[in-house]
Amino acid sequence: MSAPLHEARPAGPGRVLPSTGPERRALPDTQQGMRRRNLSRVMHTVSAEGPLSRAAVASRIGLTRAAVSTLVDELVRSGLLEELGPERPGRVGRPGSALAVSGRGPAGIGAEVGVDHLAVCAVDLRGEIRSRAVRLVPNRGRSPETVLRELTALLLRAVGAIEDEGLWPAGLTVAVPGLVARDARTVVRAPNLGWHDTDLGALLPARFPLTVANEANCGGLAELWLGEGAPRDFLHVSAEIGIGAAVVVDGQLLLGNRGFAGELGHVPVRPDGPECACGGRGCLEQYAGEEAVLRAAGLEPGEDRVGLLAGRAEQGDPAVRRALHDAGTALGIALTGAVNLLDPESVVLGGALSGLAPWLLPSLRSELARRTAGPACPVSVSLLGPEGPLLGAAHSVIRGVLDDPASVAERA
Amino acid sequence: MSAPLHEARPAGPGRVLPSTGPERRALPDTQQGMRRRNLSRVMHTVSAEGPLSRAAVASRIGLTRAAVSTLVDELVRSGLLEELGPERPGRVGRPGSALAVSGRGPAGIGAEVGVDHLAVCAVDLRGEIRSRAVRLVPNRGRSPETVLRELTALLLRAVGAIEDEGLWPAGLTVAVPGLVARDARTVVRAPNLGWHDTDLGALLPARFPLTVANEANCGGLAELWLGEGAPRDFLHVSAEIGIGAAVVVDGQLLLGNRGFAGELGHVPVRPDGPECACGGRGCLEQYAGEEAVLRAAGLEPGEDRVGLLAGRAEQGDPAVRRALHDAGTALGIALTGAVNLLDPESVVLGGALSGLAPWLLPSLRSELARRTAGPACPVSVSLLGPEGPLLGAAHSVIRGVLDDPASVAERA
Repeated sequence: MSAPLHEARPAGPGRVLPSTGPERRALPDTQQGMRRRNLSRVMHTVSAEGPLSRAAVASRIGLTRAAVSTLVDELVRSGLLEELGPERPGRVGRPGSALAVSGRGPAGIGAEVGVDHLAVCAVDLRGEIRSRAVRLVPNRGRSPETVLRELTALLLRAVGAIEDEGLWPAGLTVAVPGLVARDARTVVRAPNLGWHDTDLGALLPARFPLTVANEANCGGLAELWLGEGAPRDFLHVSAEIGIGAAVVVDGQLLLGNRGFAGELGHVPVRPDGPECACGGRGCLEQYAGEEAVLRAAGLEPGEDRVGLLAGRAEQGDPAVRRALHDAGTALGIALTGAVNLLDPESVVLGGALSGLAPWLLPSLRSELARRTAGPACPVSVSLLGPEGPLLGAAHSVIRGVLDDPASVAERA
Repeated sequence: MSAPLHEARPAGPGRVLPSTGPERRALPDTQQGMRRRNLSRVMHTVSAEGPLSRAAVASRIGLTRAAVSTLVDELVRSGLLEELGPERPGRVGRPGSALAVSGRGPAGIGAEVGVDHLAVCAVDLRGEIRSRAVRLVPNRGRSPETVLRELTALLLRAVGAIEDEGLWPAGLTVAVPGLVARDARTVVRAPNLGWHDTDLGALLPARFPLTVANEANCGGLAELWLGEGAPRDFLHVSAEIGIGAAVVVDGQLLLGNRGFAGELGHVPVRPDGPECACGGRGCLEQYAGEEAVLRAAGLEPGEDRVGLLAGRAEQGDPAVRRALHDAGTALGIALTGAVNLLDPESVVLGGALSGLAPWLLPSLRSELARRTAGPACPVSVSLLGPEGPLLGAAHSVIRGVLDDPASVAERA
């Protein structure tokens, strides 16, 4: 813990989820601001490439070894970095001793409110999951108070477990299937839960710095940070009952003016198609949302919707296969529009959609290809599966620590 | 001219058009980088609020008066700032003397290659147009060599005129109706000119630092910088024969992975609609591009397409009014998708579309409203009209100077 590390953040339009690197931070252009950015550079460098010696860090970030040593000393004192070399009293900072991010300091807590489940996980600065709990529970139509009481119980259990291991919660990000205001607390509309204008901050323990985020956005960030060879410009599409997307541009999440960007589910696919709850007609969700696909296949929506569809498709059920083929076509039409507007490096299917990819992809890809001049945008499937949003939520807290270590050092 | 101002730019993915402020620059986090950012802050502050005294600049940007004086002295020596106070030898920097951006130093040269015209203008650091030339000439199907030879002649005349007034060209931005690669030199595809994979850099005088940019993007930047009460998050839609858009997010132009973002004209509106040159079907351009509207109205495409349509609509021609109504509907469908994906603060119609707005807007707005849950995204009309892209091109050079004054000071 080190007082000079701390400095008030500049006021601003408020980033709802942290950036992926220090270079985008709008810290003030003063000696203290520069110092904070350099602390962040050290953390990001050791996190990405560690263990590293002080000399190696210095050469990576282009500062002198002396400057880096001062920064490292503060980060070690704050419990964010650890020295891996043989620890001899009074010689902690000696040359050659390797540095790593701490496996004990701050932890990121991620939580997810799904239509059919609640989940919590805690991730340390190294990205390791240190605690995890899932509860299957039908949340549709239940009051926010009831749901968040249950979530809090899960949460406190997970936090208790990591505190026993010497970690402390640096913050909590809750992923929800709905539109979240830019205050990062208020769920404006979550139609599949039946919630609207709900301030989750008032219903969760005040001790955790809170961020509420759209689950599709959390899934997209997980792909950015944890995906295999993930590009920096991509559109991450995920679905539960609704269909959402995360727009990632140059490694940053595009939030939109109100925080509502990425509503791919309400892009018109056939403008005279069936009515949608949003007021429109022929929205993508009417063709490729889980319930729409079940309906098209003549099946009843139950709890494990994706499992049911994947199982039947695997068995060769023609109605299910046709329904998934048509859903892929609708996704291809909506994605043609999105690709024309955003020119991403790739499209990634994540969340529940990843489990249905074998039957969605052929028609999706061919639709995209035939509507595109030049080579079509590549479409891939996320390897994170349905865990994406929860991991993205927890890692967004960790990224916040790497982006501005000074902000948590005080609380260490 | 001052050596310490200059420092090599960091290598990076290359911003194709400059940012709107110094805060986003990825200058290195060193004393020199900080100095360059602070030079930019001084320039932006005086540009936006000047004339200002040194003390006023210091209080605006939160630096000491001494620090600001050193920065100001360099900018005055480089010819980027002027002292407006009574100039007495040896007392140039005395307190109280007001500062303004120079009306003599660097100028931004904008050029436009349209389907039916060529245009050039020169703008000084104060944003005043100092020279301007337009030539009506049908460029469709003409070779890039021929067109750029004519453009160069216009260009040299405009530059000669400003040089006579003590200005010098800091750079040239050429707006083209087509897709431009991220090298900001190569026109990948400009179907309405018939150009593809054309390196304009090889066809223009080497003495001007060159940026080639999509004309819809230039129009969007003009709206951002010069529009009345323009928001910082908006979608700027413009049309000639094709339909393009500029996606502006938090005051930055979204370029896309290849530089092709904003291709609103190829968003599918009716997926089984008429074939489009892009390979798709039912693209927006098939319903709302100038030639499509003329065709729908039973008119022959000539040179002044917008003038013809506006004139007939004004006279109450029912076929033209119906064609424009349907074009507005198609725009509304495509914009519903765009608004869902991007959540902009507003949509602005610019370029040729602004002249047809009275007949497009009613159906456009009602389509957007009926397809949107909650309040629909506001749609307004640019006051810049068809001049937007040319002004945006010239101002992008000026913005580049304000963003990094050190980069031009050397050449002053």
